Amino acid sequence: MTHTRTPLLDRVAGPQDLKSFTDAELGRVAGELRNEVISAVSETGGHLGSSLGVVELSVAIHAVFNTPNDKLIWDVGHQCYPHKILTGRRDRMRTLRQKDGLSGFTKRSESEYDPFGAAHSSTSISAALGFTVGHDLGMATGDAIAVIGDGSISAGMAYEALNNAGAEGRRMFVILNDNEMSIAPPVGAMSTYLSRISQIGPLPLFDAVAKDMEKLLPEPMRLGAQRARQMVTGVQGQGTFFEELGFEYIGPIDGHDMDQLLGVLRAARTRATGPVLIHCCTVKGKGYSHAEGSADKYHGVSKFDVKSGVQAKATANAPSYTKVFGQALAQEAARDPRIVAVTAAMPGGTGLNIMAERFPARVFDVGIAEQHGVTFAAGMAASGLKPFCAIYSTFLQRGYDQVVHDVALQKLPVRFALDRAGLVGADGATHAGAFDIGFLGALPGMVVMAASDEAELAHMVVTAAEYDEGPIAFRYPRGNGTGVQMPERGEVIEIGKGRVVREGTDAAILCFGTHLAECEMAAAMLEAEGVSVTLADARFAKPLDMDLIASLAANHAALITIEQGAMGGFGAFVLQAMAAQGLLDGKLKVRTMCLPDRFIDQASPAEMYADAGLTALDIMSEVSRMLKRDTTVVGFSGRA
Amino acid sequence: MTHTRTPLLDRVAGPQDLKSFTDAELGRVAGELRNEVISAVSETGGHLGSSLGVVELSVAIHAVFNTPNDKLIWDVGHQCYPHKILTGRRDRMRTLRQKDGLSGFTKRSESEYDPFGAAHSSTSISAALGFTVGHDLGMATGDAIAVIGDGSISAGMAYEALNNAGAEGRRMFVILNDNEMSIAPPVGAMSTYLSRISQIGPLPLFDAVAKDMEKLLPEPMRLGAQRARQMVTGVQGQGTFFEELGFEYIGPIDGHDMDQLLGVLRAARTRATGPVLIHCCTVKGKGYSHAEGSADKYHGVSKFDVKSGVQAKATANAPSYTKVFGQALAQEAARDPRIVAVTAAMPGGTGLNIMAERFPARVFDVGIAEQHGVTFAAGMAASGLKPFCAIYSTFLQRGYDQVVHDVALQKLPVRFALDRAGLVGADGATHAGAFDIGFLGALPGMVVMAASDEAELAHMVVTAAEYDEGPIAFRYPRGNGTGVQMPERGEVIEIGKGRVVREGTDAAILCFGTHLAECEMAAAMLEAEGVSVTLADARFAKPLDMDLIASLAANHAALITIEQGAMGGFGAFVLQAMAAQGLLDGKLKVRTMCLPDRFIDQASPAEMYADAGLTALDIMSEVSRMLKRDTTVVGFSGRA
Repeated sequence: MTHTRTPLLDRVAGPQDLKSFTDAELGRVAGELRNEVISAVSETGGHLGSSLGVVELSVAIHAVFNTPNDKLIWDVGHQCYPHKILTGRRDRMRTLRQKDGLSGFTKRSESEYDPFGAAHSSTSISAALGFTVGHDLGMATGDAIAVIGDGSISAGMAYEALNNAGAEGRRMFVILNDNEMSIAPPVGAMSTYLSRISQIGPLPLFDAVAKDMEKLLPEPMRLGAQRARQMVTGVQGQGTFFEELGFEYIGPIDGHDMDQLLGVLRAARTRATGPVLIHCCTVKGKGYSHAEGSADKYHGVSKFDVKSGVQAKATANAPSYTKVFGQALAQEAARDPRIVAVTAAMPGGTGLNIMAERFPARVFDVGIAEQHGVTFAAGMAASGLKPFCAIYSTFLQRGYDQVVHDVALQKLPVRFALDRAGLVGADGATHAGAFDIGFLGALPGMVVMAASDEAELAHMVVTAAEYDEGPIAFRYPRGNGTGVQMPERGEVIEIGKGRVVREGTDAAILCFGTHLAECEMAAAMLEAEGVSVTLADARFAKPLDMDLIASLAANHAALITIEQGAMGGFGAFVLQAMAAQGLLDGKLKVRTMCLPDRFIDQASPAEMYADAGLTALDIMSEVSRMLKRDTTVVGFSGRA
Repeated sequence: MTHTRTPLLDRVAGPQDLKSFTDAELGRVAGELRNEVISAVSETGGHLGSSLGVVELSVAIHAVFNTPNDKLIWDVGHQCYPHKILTGRRDRMRTLRQKDGLSGFTKRSESEYDPFGAAHSSTSISAALGFTVGHDLGMATGDAIAVIGDGSISAGMAYEALNNAGAEGRRMFVILNDNEMSIAPPVGAMSTYLSRISQIGPLPLFDAVAKDMEKLLPEPMRLGAQRARQMVTGVQGQGTFFEELGFEYIGPIDGHDMDQLLGVLRAARTRATGPVLIHCCTVKGKGYSHAEGSADKYHGVSKFDVKSGVQAKATANAPSYTKVFGQALAQEAARDPRIVAVTAAMPGGTGLNIMAERFPARVFDVGIAEQHGVTFAAGMAASGLKPFCAIYSTFLQRGYDQVVHDVALQKLPVRFALDRAGLVGADGATHAGAFDIGFLGALPGMVVMAASDEAELAHMVVTAAEYDEGPIAFRYPRGNGTGVQMPERGEVIEIGKGRVVREGTDAAILCFGTHLAECEMAAAMLEAEGVSVTLADARFAKPLDMDLIASLAANHAALITIEQGAMGGFGAFVLQAMAAQGLLDGKLKVRTMCLPDRFIDQASPAEMYADAGLTALDIMSEVSRMLKRDTTVVGFSGRA
């Protein structure tokens, strides 16, 4: 633990305390704040690199604007640690991303200084426009300021918002935090464009404040400013991309130069009448050499030693699901040249980097663009290729219409690899992969699988590679496998067939996915109490294994389904199918255990599943209750 | 019926027949094709205006490119009537949008000339990039050509695709069909930008072919070309928006001038090495004076008289649900100044035009931008406003992540008005509002209602306006109400409370939504056969009325749920909740009737519901079967 002295920061209980500081003092506050962020994150882990990049920006915005009446909206929100420290949450920073602690993102319920929470990218401009309209229509809210990274602003949603905000013409502020990194280095033509205009150097394009800003520029820049402006904008008034969309464009400015930041923000705040975009260049990991020097700029780190920069490593006895997927896919890609893969800005997170190392021409990083990514994959499938679309469960929500309209309706064989299914731990509710079983399983012709362990995942990769009749999805959780023996290569699973893991006579547990291990514990506990349990791994939520289900229903007094997903998913499908076949007509007792009907805050995955009531003990208790329960339902007349 | 002579078109059995025509003959083919489109659509109704705008373009593309090996992808697909006529479907044009007839959109299963179907907008560039990669990786496919309107290209998804395609740098063709109209006049800054560059006139910006194209330009234009290019691009090489994104830009050209079209397409096809965007200006409704002269350019028409342009009017005894919604919302907006409304390019289709006439400053058309629209509404809700987000059920799929992440997770009171819920008729499977009950009902804190008739819809508008604790959605179908007495103003419904419509003793029917009328018929038929039926209008899929459900379960031998939605929806939620409370433990028989697990092709809504097995007769039969069925389930041992 490293605590450096922070005499100025100690005087900041909230943003109002920044108002009395001189500009020079604000610069020193930023320095102290940077050390505080490093110190806190070294104890908790978290999104270090992006937070270090916006230390000066956080101080400057809170010093110039009047938060919380002015609405400051951090896009994604993972860069908000300096903001949290400045807004009364310094004492809780060392609970970050832990159970009952601070969220790793902005969160409305946590602070009035977080007017619009986030975690998924590219929402901030839309939200800021919403607050702006609220202000203009008389709501008690001040200016709206969105801070958005260059990766996030390249997403279609941000473009839609810029396009709308530019046309609306209302006074609002978008600060483009351009660090030339999203999680991975950014891709796409817009990224190239931003790099190009950044390289030209500081440009005072906001006519009304140009003179003020030029004073802030270093001497050679000041002389070159007019010429540089012409280079970017053209003589006849052709503007930057942002000006085409109706924004006043200021920049690029140095996001680590407090004087520039304060000058530009003050000028913009004083004089803006319409939408303003401030292009602010920052360095991810700024001021911490180990972060600046690393390839990922310490985007997300575990606990680390401040001096050496060495991160704590979790000791794993089994490979991560992500790695198993990545390796299995690379193996299949080596066998079949038609296999291609798509990621939306997450080559490392999805494990596609493994295939990309061997087959770089067949892995496509489309940027933060899930809508396009899904339909692009559909187009590749229509051409005869075998696309794997690797998108986290929670982010596939971004491409849902494309899954319905472009993939499922056309029966195109796109393979969806859904990592981070179920509860994900420190990233909390926003990243939970809770809804995919339901929203995919409702689609005609979709095959939906879940891997109960890492060997099953290997089988499912091979199965998906072989299956070419339509779309197929397989889900698997964040984290490490269970340590089972891995096959040399996965085997093709028969579509729509589950497997019985353990046979018994009293109750049946039908599990979909990696909660199988928990179910095995529950079954063992029940057995110890004299309850004989059949445990089955459903493997498929669609098509369901109706032979298996009918057999479980016929031969047990109670049947319970288990899944790491929300209501309306696997258990619901099982019940609907059973009802249709009359399997619920008799006195069989059925229950569906799934995620409860509420969002679950961050903690360890185990803690979150305990919170959700899905531990082995919970399962055991539910089965016990079912078997003990009086068969007469209160109020049921018994007719029929 | 008007048939003009079509001697050249009669010789076109497929695109290959165009190859033998001279350029002048191709121009004449286009003229004949236009008449044929007008004649056919006058008999069937359909998307006339957009099809008339691309007559010359359709001929030119098929004449220059080598379809179906080259992949021609029409964005949205509703402008494909000339394309269908040219590609062997002329004899079936008068079955358009009818049961067992041609689809009103492009459709893979209909023709090899439709390599990628559509109906939702903005997917074509993504799909074209997919085919392009397929070609580059050795699949048997030629060039990919996407034709996309100026409305569609302003959506975020299209931007994502341009951004990715520009960076990929592969040879592909995007033809921007710029008619300055989507369904409504387009909105947004990009639209303004396109208008501006269009007004400058024809510009040969594609350097390699500039000379060829200049020959095609009228004299004054040719002289002005270089200067005009500078005006748009700037001296120092600053390009258009599309050039910034990595495309070669050609245009704007006159999309009704066959010589220009052929020249540009031939030059581009011969010489392109990377992505090319051809900016083609067209007139929606071109060549049919009644269409050109109307405000909506005959975007979607019913059958009409060719000479007078007069459209057949359906005689309606009841107002449309859309109108009831629009009027009820305008009425509430008059009472509460905090009410605002959002549409994604559908002010007329959603009925928001009614509120917009009275309160133009409080209705926001964000363009084809559902992602932004939802989060913009969330931002307005966070500011204290009361936003109604009016998006068709099928299009809300585009904003699903925003509903989850920005609205539901933050418990923000956004009101979702979901028109076109259930099966929609002539627009077919792509427009079905099939999945919303499930994908919304799975979200914690969401309230999900369905109106059983137009009076109920009025109640639900008022209920949604009053409800401020979190998100609330209400769904209602396309078409006209049932003719019930309308209240002066709707009444607030108690959240989570259904209503019993008819009381009986044998079976209970629990209906969610406008299938209530069908259920009433079924109940009457059952009653005639001596079966006493309770019929309840659930009103809510979330929260469920568990008192009502428990009472129905307790007092009837059979319970059946009915909904106009897919599996995993209302019926599934009812079963899960009943299981949790032990209501399925006894010998009650339950069934859930919902849309079948397949996509249903276009026909009249009544025909589609018959196809779906959801007629009154189907319901009656199912109830009869349930009551007659032997209570012993085959294979069930009866233990417990």
